[in-house]
Amino acid sequence: MGKKFQLDDVIEAQQFDRDTLSAIFEVARDMEKIEKNSSGSRILRGYLMATLFYEPSTRTRLSFESAMKRLGGEVLTTEDAQEFSSAAKGETLEDTIRTVEGYTDIIVMRHFESGAAQRAATTADIPIINAGDGPGQHPTQAFLDVYTIEREIGKLDGIRVGLVGDLANGRTVRSLAYLLAKYKDVKVYFVSPDVVKMKDDIKDYLTSKGVEWEESSDLMEVASRCDVVYQTRIQRERFGENIDLYEEARGKYIVSPAVLEVMQKHAVIMHPLPRLDEITVDVDRDPRAAYFRQAKNGLYIRMALLKLLLIGW
Amino acid sequence: MGKKFQLDDVIEAQQFDRDTLSAIFEVARDMEKIEKNSSGSRILRGYLMATLFYEPSTRTRLSFESAMKRLGGEVLTTEDAQEFSSAAKGETLEDTIRTVEGYTDIIVMRHFESGAAQRAATTADIPIINAGDGPGQHPTQAFLDVYTIEREIGKLDGIRVGLVGDLANGRTVRSLAYLLAKYKDVKVYFVSPDVVKMKDDIKDYLTSKGVEWEESSDLMEVASRCDVVYQTRIQRERFGENIDLYEEARGKYIVSPAVLEVMQKHAVIMHPLPRLDEITVDVDRDPRAAYFRQAKNGLYIRMALLKLLLIGW
Amino acid sequence: MGKKFQLDDVIEAQQFDRDTLSAIFEVARDMEKIEKNSSGSRILRGYLMATLFYEPSTRTRLSFESAMKRLGGEVLTTEDAQEFSSAAKGETLEDTIRTVEGYTDIIVMRHFESGAAQRAATTADIPIINAGDGPGQHPTQAFLDVYTIEREIGKLDGIRVGLVGDLANGRTVRSLAYLLAKYKDVKVYFVSPDVVKMKDDIKDYLTSKGVEWEESSDLMEVASRCDVVYQTRIQRERFGENIDLYEEARGKYIVSPAVLEVMQKHAVIMHPLPRLDEITVDVDRDPRAAYFRQAKNGLYIRMALLKLLLIGW
Repeated sequence: MGKKFQLDDVIEAQQFDRDTLSAIFEVARDMEKIEKNSSGSRILRGYLMATLFYEPSTRTRLSFESAMKRLGGEVLTTEDAQEFSSAAKGETLEDTIRTVEGYTDIIVMRHFESGAAQRAATTADIPIINAGDGPGQHPTQAFLDVYTIEREIGKLDGIRVGLVGDLANGRTVRSLAYLLAKYKDVKVYFVSPDVVKMKDDIKDYLTSKGVEWEESSDLMEVASRCDVVYQTRIQRERFGENIDLYEEARGKYIVSPAVLEVMQKHAVIMHPLPRLDEITVDVDRDPRAAYFRQAKNGLYIRMALLKLLLIGW
Repeated sequence: MGKKFQLDDVIEAQQFDRDTLSAIFEVARDMEKIEKNSSGSRILRGYLMATLFYEPSTRTRLSFESAMKRLGGEVLTTEDAQEFSSAAKGETLEDTIRTVEGYTDIIVMRHFESGAAQRAATTADIPIINAGDGPGQHPTQAFLDVYTIEREIGKLDGIRVGLVGDLANGRTVRSLAYLLAKYKDVKVYFVSPDVVKMKDDIKDYLTSKGVEWEESSDLMEVASRCDVVYQTRIQRERFGENIDLYEEARGKYIVSPAVLEVMQKHAVIMHPLPRLDEITVDVDRDPRAAYFRQAKNGLYIRMALLKLLLIGW
Repeated sequence: MGKKFQLDDVIEAQQFDRDTLSAIFEVARDMEKIEKNSSGSRILRGYLMATLFYEPSTRTRLSFESAMKRLGGEVLTTEDAQEFSSAAKGETLEDTIRTVEGYTDIIVMRHFESGAAQRAATTADIPIINAGDGPGQHPTQAFLDVYTIEREIGKLDGIRVGLVGDLANGRTVRSLAYLLAKYKDVKVYFVSPDVVKMKDDIKDYLTSKGVEWEESSDLMEVASRCDVVYQTRIQRERFGENIDLYEEARGKYIVSPAVLEVMQKHAVIMHPLPRLDEITVDVDRDPRAAYFRQAKNGLYIRMALLKLLLIGW
């Protein structure tokens, strides 16, 4: 490794530089080997992780809890953290954190308010991992996305990534764009219905970092050029009563076997899940359908982060 | 054992033949000894089980989780699996299973739709245990019932079983009837209010398998002849607004000390629990009241199945 | 220790005499050392605890679950125990207990009905810990309060304690008063808005035990004399529609830096948490603010009780 560093909290994707990401990915690869060993790791034996979830996200919670248990650690589960500060009680987040940190060695927190994870980290003496704070960040998702690209394509410098679907609201694609800007000669294509186009702040950021990008309405053309087609779900809840607009948007760019036909042999399709029908199920059988491997990579990334935060390198 | 076989999934009671049941029961008896050993078994150390419950069933969930932990394994709990496929998201069961199987070594699933467990098993590479799928099956309940009869009476061939209560809607008694048909010289008595009589499909099945059966409205007579009086709850929710019909049905066949008086010394009373007042509480003290031992046997059966599915004989 | 005794259940604070409390506190001090040891204790390895919660209390549940896991034991969690006896089913508490005791070695129970814990203990062959039964008892909270006083002040005989806030409804201060009566030369001050004054039963009890007490409306005067200022939350839900009365009551006795100024150097502020604004946040930084240490002491007390109930001294 050479360079050693201390990881204190995981709050937002941008806090990590390229070397740190590379080091985390190296640990994640070790974790793949450990998880395959069915006799069970004892690396985090005696450590306790609390999942403090203020809104439900069973997928993310299970991924973290599996990661901790695969390393021999133990878990305290709170799916209903809202109960701490329920109307009748009104406890502040800071007081809740001070109480919970007395029971555990690390807190994985999901909250509906942007900035909540940072407030928790400022308060706590133990490590905090942000497992999503509202419209804010979900850094471990961004890490697993980049880790998956490297695992599937074999490189990060020089890759071409097509971001498809809801680019306006998805925090996933926004965080991914931030992280891709840390690598060289990256080219990003934005393919989205007009109502959910990528916002200017990300475009400006990419430009400032020297990342080439272009918008396109031709998914087939983009798919034929890219290493990664990153599809996302059009979120109905963003359209309110404009069901017509939603239906038009969601049907516009579907990844189907026709898209597979124009894609290169080495290229892959990714998706943060859950999906509806923006990737048709007959795509699943193709080896280039990487989205379930991507979900599994979330386990390795979270194992790596838990190890690094609790016992270091 | 002699014959070795591979257990892949546990989906429905009928999938198991008499030899397999006998082998499972042999392992279950070993599990009784292991559970008594307070220092804790490490047989399933390093293994992870997920309970994926689409509707609540605390009793069944705790029984499985206790079984896994008594064997040294670990558990990921999801009581709110519905959240995976909530309205806003609409993920298919298949996609959920593909994601969850990345986090765990075995899935125990409870669902409200008949056939859901089979769909999960078809999708997953890891073992699936059906912990009840709506009006469909609840095979581990059926196993523990038969295991209890053998433990309490000492045999299965030649037994006489009185099935009492709601025979139309209870999947428990239906599954039990299917399993009893695998044994020789069995005689089954059906004792139920007219509105919830045993349906013809089960009667025809028993006849086709050479199992003698008769309907009776005389609980005392049946109780005096049987080895097992299997009482069930009349389910109010089946009667809708016909409260009068419900009240009449539920009061008709009550197991009370008077029933105990006519029962043979070696005979037992069973019940899948929960009970209301279809067995009066003054029956509990009698050694022939086997229903709490029956619930405990569920632990041993589930320990046996987890061991067999995860590491084999 | 000298005297050995058998602890069977923990139902109410009054069941413990001074020697037993002292012995529990001695074990709790050992637990502080064990918790600091990050490699993890194996003292309760192979033991299983069920948290059977009929109403949510995430704080209390996490404290018990952390205690069990810090000692190497395992946990079955039920936050929704009400589901056992839901309308459709109507199972008695006794039947639920008989079922759950087949799955676990000890039950930690939270219920909304006074006396529920005693009913569970009468039914169960395994130990029951009362984690709060409605308006009744919450004995482990009372133990941790007394343990905290001893840890912070260095003695229990001769202490002066100011109980502040809602003294009519808070079961915490009532239980604490019962326990303080077991020590010598104790003096208790009651400081509360008129609508939530301490009830006569406690005053009479203290008098009968020779404990000096007085009521005061001067928080500053009391604070200057006491070893412990024990603040409590005015519970809005007790006031129904009388919002005006509530607002008046809650603003009356606030612990602020002004109170700190008159307090003695060795004295401490305690609070059972959660707090709203009855202690201002600028008090937190003062070393005499003991309420988060108090919450942490709950962990040690619960570790001690679990050890004593499961494996003895």
